[in-house]
Amino acid sequence: MAKVLTSKEENYAQWYNDLVIKAGLAENSAVRGCMVIKPYGYAIWEKIQAQLDRMFKETGHENAYFPLFIPKSFFSREANHIEGFAKECAIVTHYRLKKDEEKGGIIVDPEAKLEEELIIRPTSETIIWNSYRNWIQSYRDLPILINQWANVVRWEMRTRLFLRTAEFLWQEGHTAHATQKEAEEETIRMINVYAEFAEKHLAIPVIAGKKTESEKFAGAVDTLTIEALMQDGKAIQAGTSHFLGQNFARAFDVQFTSEEGKLEYVWATSWGMTTRMIGALIMAHSDNNGLILPPRMAPVQVVIVPIYKGNEQLPLIAETAGRIKSELMEKGISVKFDDRDTQKPGWKFAEYELKGVPVRLALGPRDVENGTIEVSRRDTLEKTTIAREGVADVVQNLLEEIQDNIHQRALAFRNDNTHRVDSWDEMVNILDRKGGFILAHWDGTEESEKKIQQTRASIRCIPMNEPPEKGKCIVSGKPSERRVVIARAY
Amino acid sequence: MAKVLTSKEENYAQWYNDLVIKAGLAENSAVRGCMVIKPYGYAIWEKIQAQLDRMFKETGHENAYFPLFIPKSFFSREANHIEGFAKECAIVTHYRLKKDEEKGGIIVDPEAKLEEELIIRPTSETIIWNSYRNWIQSYRDLPILINQWANVVRWEMRTRLFLRTAEFLWQEGHTAHATQKEAEEETIRMINVYAEFAEKHLAIPVIAGKKTESEKFAGAVDTLTIEALMQDGKAIQAGTSHFLGQNFARAFDVQFTSEEGKLEYVWATSWGMTTRMIGALIMAHSDNNGLILPPRMAPVQVVIVPIYKGNEQLPLIAETAGRIKSELMEKGISVKFDDRDTQKPGWKFAEYELKGVPVRLALGPRDVENGTIEVSRRDTLEKTTIAREGVADVVQNLLEEIQDNIHQRALAFRNDNTHRVDSWDEMVNILDRKGGFILAHWDGTEESEKKIQQTRASIRCIPMNEPPEKGKCIVSGKPSERRVVIARAY
Repeated sequence: MAKVLTSKEENYAQWYNDLVIKAGLAENSAVRGCMVIKPYGYAIWEKIQAQLDRMFKETGHENAYFPLFIPKSFFSREANHIEGFAKECAIVTHYRLKKDEEKGGIIVDPEAKLEEELIIRPTSETIIWNSYRNWIQSYRDLPILINQWANVVRWEMRTRLFLRTAEFLWQEGHTAHATQKEAEEETIRMINVYAEFAEKHLAIPVIAGKKTESEKFAGAVDTLTIEALMQDGKAIQAGTSHFLGQNFARAFDVQFTSEEGKLEYVWATSWGMTTRMIGALIMAHSDNNGLILPPRMAPVQVVIVPIYKGNEQLPLIAETAGRIKSELMEKGISVKFDDRDTQKPGWKFAEYELKGVPVRLALGPRDVENGTIEVSRRDTLEKTTIAREGVADVVQNLLEEIQDNIHQRALAFRNDNTHRVDSWDEMVNILDRKGGFILAHWDGTEESEKKIQQTRASIRCIPMNEPPEKGKCIVSGKPSERRVVIARAY
Repeated sequence: MAKVLTSKEENYAQWYNDLVIKAGLAENSAVRGCMVIKPYGYAIWEKIQAQLDRMFKETGHENAYFPLFIPKSFFSREANHIEGFAKECAIVTHYRLKKDEEKGGIIVDPEAKLEEELIIRPTSETIIWNSYRNWIQSYRDLPILINQWANVVRWEMRTRLFLRTAEFLWQEGHTAHATQKEAEEETIRMINVYAEFAEKHLAIPVIAGKKTESEKFAGAVDTLTIEALMQDGKAIQAGTSHFLGQNFARAFDVQFTSEEGKLEYVWATSWGMTTRMIGALIMAHSDNNGLILPPRMAPVQVVIVPIYKGNEQLPLIAETAGRIKSELMEKGISVKFDDRDTQKPGWKFAEYELKGVPVRLALGPRDVENGTIEVSRRDTLEKTTIAREGVADVVQNLLEEIQDNIHQRALAFRNDNTHRVDSWDEMVNILDRKGGFILAHWDGTEESEKKIQQTRASIRCIPMNEPPEKGKCIVSGKPSERRVVIARAY
């Protein structure tokens, strides 16, 4: 079969776009910068949602829903926040259309102008903290541990499916605490939830760390991030957790009476993960044949393809396939039996490779006779023929093995592409030649950071879990206490 | 304890609003007409979502996601659709804010005006059918069976929490078919899914039927509806399923090559259910003590309240409660053990009555000694003391009994308040005196329907499952083939 994708080596960006389209994950819509998430792509998002939601609830969070619209004046209240978010946003100014009496068609009714414009939420701190003011009087009302699944809009000028779109889906956690310590612990707890989710479920190794002042969330005191490395050597920010201090409590006047009877401002965190993760999932694992999905994120984990000539062979194969399907489903494995007679087995093989189904079972008349079955794994493309008896156990183990293998492979790739660098020239050379994570010393100044940014790279994070190490800044030569992660990024 | 709610008899609307607020379900936000769905209200929505989503998938549907924004011109394409939806909508005209150099603060940047205004989706037929055009070439691409969970905006002038809000959450199914018959079958299938969901899960009896021409969805050939009766004698439209004919296919030029090789327009359906159902759930079952939730929709099905004096009694009670909690959880029952020492048992009893927790277990030191436990059911407020041994089985059965009893009670109420009426005066009398469903003959004309509407009632539906019956229209005296359902409605 002809390859349907541009190869990664030829053009990585084109390969990515081809894959998103051809695997039926998403496509551009008639509205600039807004994507349509197609059923197969959305099914991956449902997997992400289900697992994250479980982890949020296990850590004591509840879901709620706040309005899509934010009054314009809310943005002005937190000075840094507006700098970061008010620039590119969708603004509702009117609430009625009417017939155009002169030219026909419909026009915006000029008489239906809003007194105050409404901004489509780019993030919900402001509208949520405006509500929290009424919810919080005493320390007994704290903590508030709320998450929201929602759509948000940021009017990006250059968009790419999943990676950067004007509208995207996400979850945003917004918590309120009585003490700084508790809020800081929550910030760390949630970046750890994200890291665990990325490693165990997406099979993507990540480095957790702190953003620099210039890269942190607009309105945060500190932003924690997890950073992953894609196959083309570029980094992607995979999830962030912000310690907001008392900034939003001050901006929205949210005070509480402490146990000691004092009036204090509430401490806040917020944290989010988005549909962008589907892009990261693609770029962490996939190959020139198509998607490679970790089994825990695969909408279909196993596909059974019958191999037969003439319709008289199908019933017997179908019966065996049906029994295998039931056995697998009893183990909680999602299975599809593709008995369409409109497509040949070879076409189906290519199709499920493109779609990243982790395990393919092929079953022909001779297999039925001999009590065997062919098992293929998507990650390595290996095929083996095994006994049909006990196939469900084999597949269950294989799925775990694939999950682990994909993770190990991504980890090995990251290790191979992480470079401890001690000079400016070496950094530039590596960035230009092959990309990857650069571990280098930085003096902590904005000035040196700006120089780094001139290479189109950025300081992705100051790692949380690395031991301190004394050294010299690769820009200024000044002393540094630890290495930071530098990379070009999505 | 003082009653926290206005009584239903005194002021039903106020009772409803009190209940929504006091039970922590939702509240108004700073944005006109937009509500905040609080965690307890959202937890009910999650129950609704999970069950409906399961039923949609069992009937072959997949989820996807389409843009929030719809280009203004899309609305003009289907003539009836624009009449129904373009009037009250939120319109995005600009995409950037900037600092006001003269007066300070921020203003809409006049230079960032969109070429074509974007409408926040009030419903997504237009943007979806614009995508379907590219997805459908041949009969092999059909059917498309897609659902979307989303927020939508309709700029309502008079809003009420859950019942009518500017922004609300819903699901919208949008299917595409090769034949009229298949699309009509889908329309019926989905109204039946809604009816089953309402009856079995919400415990709300509904009448399924067809809307009149004047009440149908803007752009539909036929609209099917399920109508429920609330405790104050008013009807609520609980879900609708539309047969759209080829209207949207024509408007968006979606044609396919049939098996016979002919180019034909695609047939369509759409169907939706919204957060409004939470309002219906409240008004179908609850009482002056608070919410009454059918167990299948209750975020917490069982609460265990310890009764003790002095902290030395708590550990033994807590140990027994813990064991009961585990036994219940093993059966898939959601349980909360409320061991807060900041509130007295009586306060907790009232609180869980307000929140509609179906079963309350109370456990004191004497119960622990005697091996007994007190079981109270929310629907009847009955209490009994039973043996602790086997309590999980008793509770499991009780939850089913409560689910059934709530449904039976609502059904008995509806039967008592459904009136076969054969004269205009009798209808007006009943509508004014007590409300309820009126079953009356109607001649099928718009003229007679308009007269009925002058009583502030409307024809809710032409029932699907009632036998035909000859009679005379209560308005005109002209012959009629069947009775229709008339009521005042939310």
